[in-house]
Amino acid sequence: MKNILIIGLGHIGGSLALGLKKKFKNVFNFYGIDISLQTLTKSHKKIGFLKKCLFGNKEEKLIIESSDIIFICVEPTSIEKILTKISSYNVKKGVIVSDVASTKKDILKSARKIFKKKKINFVGGHPIAGTEKNGFSSATSDLFEDKIYIQSGEIATKKQIGAINNLWRKLGSKVYTIDVKSHDKVFAYLSHLPHALSFCLNSLALKKIGKKRIDNLGGSSYKDYSRISSSSSLLWSDIFLSNSSNLIASLNESILFLEKLKLALKTNSRSKIADLIKP
Amino acid sequence: MKNILIIGLGHIGGSLALGLKKKFKNVFNFYGIDISLQTLTKSHKKIGFLKKCLFGNKEEKLIIESSDIIFICVEPTSIEKILTKISSYNVKKGVIVSDVASTKKDILKSARKIFKKKKINFVGGHPIAGTEKNGFSSATSDLFEDKIYIQSGEIATKKQIGAINNLWRKLGSKVYTIDVKSHDKVFAYLSHLPHALSFCLNSLALKKIGKKRIDNLGGSSYKDYSRISSSSSLLWSDIFLSNSSNLIASLNESILFLEKLKLALKTNSRSKIADLIKP
Repeated sequence: MKNILIIGLGHIGGSLALGLKKKFKNVFNFYGIDISLQTLTKSHKKIGFLKKCLFGNKEEKLIIESSDIIFICVEPTSIEKILTKISSYNVKKGVIVSDVASTKKDILKSARKIFKKKKINFVGGHPIAGTEKNGFSSATSDLFEDKIYIQSGEIATKKQIGAINNLWRKLGSKVYTIDVKSHDKVFAYLSHLPHALSFCLNSLALKKIGKKRIDNLGGSSYKDYSRISSSSSLLWSDIFLSNSSNLIASLNESILFLEKLKLALKTNSRSKIADLIKP
Repeated sequence: MKNILIIGLGHIGGSLALGLKKKFKNVFNFYGIDISLQTLTKSHKKIGFLKKCLFGNKEEKLIIESSDIIFICVEPTSIEKILTKISSYNVKKGVIVSDVASTKKDILKSARKIFKKKKINFVGGHPIAGTEKNGFSSATSDLFEDKIYIQSGEIATKKQIGAINNLWRKLGSKVYTIDVKSHDKVFAYLSHLPHALSFCLNSLALKKIGKKRIDNLGGSSYKDYSRISSSSSLLWSDIFLSNSSNLIASLNESILFLEKLKLALKTNSRSKIADLIKP
């Protein structure tokens, strides 16, 4: 049986492990590595890893060297460190390393730098399934059902890419392929800017009108809009930094838009406001 | 039987008429006025008004003069015109005029100016139940169930205010009372700024990555976030203008927040970003 290793058993990594275990119980052995003992114990109880260890422990070498597929499911700023660690071991010849980060350009750059000489295969990926939740306790085996998985950036053969894509299809996701540059631009607008605006709204509303009035009086549009601002602020700091230049561009455009809206309000121009806000 | 008149049978007015008719079929007669013949015909078919007419028609005088409760459910910029029209008729002595607009300070000012001399009673109100939908075809009798109704601003006795509040309670809403100034500040942050940011996001995303990629690749957070941007742009221009000074203040604060985020990204400061975005 082939061995699948999940490094990082949070909301995404935990859900991936639970989903794969459910679909491929008798096809793969499951290995798990996490930085937190509590997470490792909790996830082992539900998933039943054949091998598991804390990140950095001595069993790590054996686990990584016997893996056929390795999913890195940690915050984007720690990925390079993990790629370096993997490349320091004597990994299997055909091993495929994959990730789930929401930005792809810098990770591919790191993978090229670290993996290419060692001929380690890499398939970049991004499941569009994150919620405001985090941690293994919120992981579910069906998180990726009827969701989208984007394959983006690789140092791998078509067959290897197909193998990873097929795992996601089996989890119920629709697979798209996009180049890393387009991916990061698209997700600046579809994910990173929406989060930035939501953090902005929530921060102002808390400061200006307070939590009690928000809880009592916020309608469904406020709740939809601010839901994602309860996402982890450290994780999102990392995500923002990993797509910094695209996000800065979209923030500049947003500021320009809001300045135009202000001007139209100040000049009491209904038609200018309507022109600006119509889709 | 007492007579209830709904002026404006769109999403909110239509839902109010449907809901009240369902709960008070044998308690009130229902009258309807709308500016559109199509809306009037469509709503009459479902509600069965005892009396109805197009806004400005000759039957209007009789309908308004025989009403006991009048709900004005039109866009905020047209409310003053309707208050003026009502005051030009010889209305019943105890008539209560109410509204459903999402800003309250300017409307109370208009009501004071127009109604006070004529001793017409006014109860300002704001049901928190709007969605991105509009028009009578999206009206439903249960729209206000488990929602919030805010009573804000009045020229009326406690008993008259209580009568209006009770109608909303019967529709399933929880009733809060807030002064008009606080109301408009609170809803700048709970409704008007979220809409402005959502219009901003949607406008940029459409321009920069296009509708097809949004439809294919937008995850649930993007969809939650941009849903409200499909609201009518003309209605929202009016709403924005009716709360202009509070909205301008919140836009200034948003621009400041986004500038700070930009700076933290440019200086690559994870801790500054996290400090800024944490709740």
